[in-house]
Amino acid sequence: MTASSVHGPAERPARAVTRTLQDGVKKTVLPSGLRIITESIPTTRSAALGIWVGIGSRDETPAMSGASHFLEHLLFKGTHKRTALEISAEIEAVGGETNAFTTKEYTCYYARVLDSDLPLAVDVLVDAVADSLLEPTDVETERGVILEEIAMHEDEPGDEVHDVFAEAIYGDHPLGWLISGTPESVTPMTRNQIDNFYRKRYRAPEIVIAAAGNLDHAAVVRLVRKALAGSPLDTGAADPAGPRDGDKPVRVRRPHTVVLHRDTEQAHIVLGTVGLSRYDERRFALGVLNNVLGGGMSSRLFQEIREKRGLAYSVYSYASQYADTGLFGVYAGCAPGKAAEVLDLIRTELARVAAGGITAEELVRGRGMVKGSYVLGLEDTSSRMSRLAKSELLHGHLMSVDELLARVDAVTTADVAEVAADLLAREQSLAVVGPFDEGAFPPG
Amino acid sequence: MTASSVHGPAERPARAVTRTLQDGVKKTVLPSGLRIITESIPTTRSAALGIWVGIGSRDETPAMSGASHFLEHLLFKGTHKRTALEISAEIEAVGGETNAFTTKEYTCYYARVLDSDLPLAVDVLVDAVADSLLEPTDVETERGVILEEIAMHEDEPGDEVHDVFAEAIYGDHPLGWLISGTPESVTPMTRNQIDNFYRKRYRAPEIVIAAAGNLDHAAVVRLVRKALAGSPLDTGAADPAGPRDGDKPVRVRRPHTVVLHRDTEQAHIVLGTVGLSRYDERRFALGVLNNVLGGGMSSRLFQEIREKRGLAYSVYSYASQYADTGLFGVYAGCAPGKAAEVLDLIRTELARVAAGGITAEELVRGRGMVKGSYVLGLEDTSSRMSRLAKSELLHGHLMSVDELLARVDAVTTADVAEVAADLLAREQSLAVVGPFDEGAFPPG
Repeated sequence: MTASSVHGPAERPARAVTRTLQDGVKKTVLPSGLRIITESIPTTRSAALGIWVGIGSRDETPAMSGASHFLEHLLFKGTHKRTALEISAEIEAVGGETNAFTTKEYTCYYARVLDSDLPLAVDVLVDAVADSLLEPTDVETERGVILEEIAMHEDEPGDEVHDVFAEAIYGDHPLGWLISGTPESVTPMTRNQIDNFYRKRYRAPEIVIAAAGNLDHAAVVRLVRKALAGSPLDTGAADPAGPRDGDKPVRVRRPHTVVLHRDTEQAHIVLGTVGLSRYDERRFALGVLNNVLGGGMSSRLFQEIREKRGLAYSVYSYASQYADTGLFGVYAGCAPGKAAEVLDLIRTELARVAAGGITAEELVRGRGMVKGSYVLGLEDTSSRMSRLAKSELLHGHLMSVDELLARVDAVTTADVAEVAADLLAREQSLAVVGPFDEGAFPPG
Repeated sequence: MTASSVHGPAERPARAVTRTLQDGVKKTVLPSGLRIITESIPTTRSAALGIWVGIGSRDETPAMSGASHFLEHLLFKGTHKRTALEISAEIEAVGGETNAFTTKEYTCYYARVLDSDLPLAVDVLVDAVADSLLEPTDVETERGVILEEIAMHEDEPGDEVHDVFAEAIYGDHPLGWLISGTPESVTPMTRNQIDNFYRKRYRAPEIVIAAAGNLDHAAVVRLVRKALAGSPLDTGAADPAGPRDGDKPVRVRRPHTVVLHRDTEQAHIVLGTVGLSRYDERRFALGVLNNVLGGGMSSRLFQEIREKRGLAYSVYSYASQYADTGLFGVYAGCAPGKAAEVLDLIRTELARVAAGGITAEELVRGRGMVKGSYVLGLEDTSSRMSRLAKSELLHGHLMSVDELLARVDAVTTADVAEVAADLLAREQSLAVVGPFDEGAFPPG
């Protein structure tokens, strides 16, 4: 599949259509194409609400790098009905919390409240997203906030190295850029540019509103429709979206090393390669591999680097998935003088698993870890809300818990060996943040 | 109350005594003095388990600074029954997770598993805590891990500034020291010193084992007793504890400024003062004050510094509570060139609330925030397990949800004004991490 599969099907029924997807889970498509999906959990007293927009930093041009994130900040700054203070105060006065985050492929605005306060949360959050004023003075103030957010991130080398790694893999494709943009892109961005982005990209078919908790689906649909009434998201009359930079085919760079010099106490390292897309059938095998290799305290990397040798406090592997590609990497933070030794150990472990796969005992444990983190996560209304929204927005399909567990249980050592041989036998890229010069890390 | 109230009453019944504390909550005291407290939540499919020990960094001498934390690491390294790999692999194979953390006054070892795996979790975690071998080679390996953990922390200036602040307030009392210890204290610490600390401090009356989830109290008690059988924690036959450094009366230093020079992008600032102990009746009023001043997006500091002026991304106030004292501080991360302006704004807001208290509308919102975060937190088995354990370990009493909500609802604007006038009218201490020299911040 291509990146465009992130973006909603242009289903725009003449009148709202509601279906039951699973026990307790219902979905309604409004005439605008906006989708509402809820899960009723009568045993809880709370509700989680999210407005998910299928737009993120990969949908930006170089000049607009950071626009999705800038917009995410601005949507809390005020509407025709509410000031910024009123938006937050109305939710916080009832003990709720609200916030938002931007990723490379989508943006989420969410709230968590007591069940009886869900009508208020819908009214406030839908208003904020659908009817933001984007006042010029707010744009200037928020620009300062975002520049501070970028600076804060630069003071967190253990996070920053992941951005260096993404750039090493994707280069000048938008997937290689910072979600926040850079001071160079954020500083000159105008209010009108951001407003155009908002009008063009925040279209009803790109939006999924999800809720989970002690709720009634029909009541949520009524609340959403009332809150949307009269806005462009209600009529679906936004500007046509047009082609997007993020739909450009990804071209992965040749394996290479990038060193960002910083006077840190530790060397922060990511070694890895391009991974699998979220639609790749091998993703379940990769999930098992990831856990066995670097997903917990019993994982190979944790055992070899931390438990046996005490070379790092934090060492783990991870897999990120996008519509048409993905990343697979290993992070370690270690003494700068031990970086070469740690890198050797990581490379040895990657080569071992690429050549020999995993054991039957590791397979059972890896499957257990994937299933356990999934099932334990389902007890929280926010996680369940996210599951609904991501399934709908990114897959257009909600896999049942049983189906997902069966897919994980179906993974064999041969499946894991195959994906390991494919991803890990090749030359890897290396990103380092620490007290080093370019050239300090010759190809391994 | 004094610091010793952290430490368990010497209740050692001749045979196990079980009481019902609240609907679904039962407590058993074993003959050793070890306490077991559980909450049955039949609507969940998981269980959270914690072994809480009333020993932390405030119980250390200068030479042993970091011993509690070092020990916390070592208890995962192996017992007579299990290697380090087996400890983690047994829990992870069933999809569970386990970890631990050390604070100034207590240490917690925990696991979260599916309900059917609770017997396994009890067996593994009790064995790890009660019967650790502390092998000399493991001590050496783990020393390296801890030195890396300390280095990692030094690469996180937004966290590190809170330690600088605690030292500014408490000076050379153990509450002013790093929980991890320093390279200077951790490097020479011997295996025998740590083993002595373990034998002397990990006594049965200091320990609370808490569990919440789909469980049966009597079954948990049986599992714990079986897992403890034969260990020093079973018989209660540990060395007598003797006096502890942490029981020394706290002497708070005069307000002053500490600057830690680092070449960071942001200035990381904490301005604050000594706060309230966890037994202080005014703590509910302080909770409301803290939320109104800097607890959310509608708070005064967030509005003045971020929303109106765009000077910071992260700005908040916080209150830490200990047995006999506490901290109250305001954090902001901002451009170094704006640090003086941000400090002025914080000081102005502290002075305003010290002189004028808060409004009736702020009171309602602040109460809502305290209650909401508490009630929303109760939906998660780990939070409920922690609530049981902290109530028992730190208060010797479990306040009902209704009682706690009533205490918060009873807070008046006069109560808040009184605690604000007491804490915030005085001169504050200042901690700064950033590209500054000593003397860059004259008293405000």
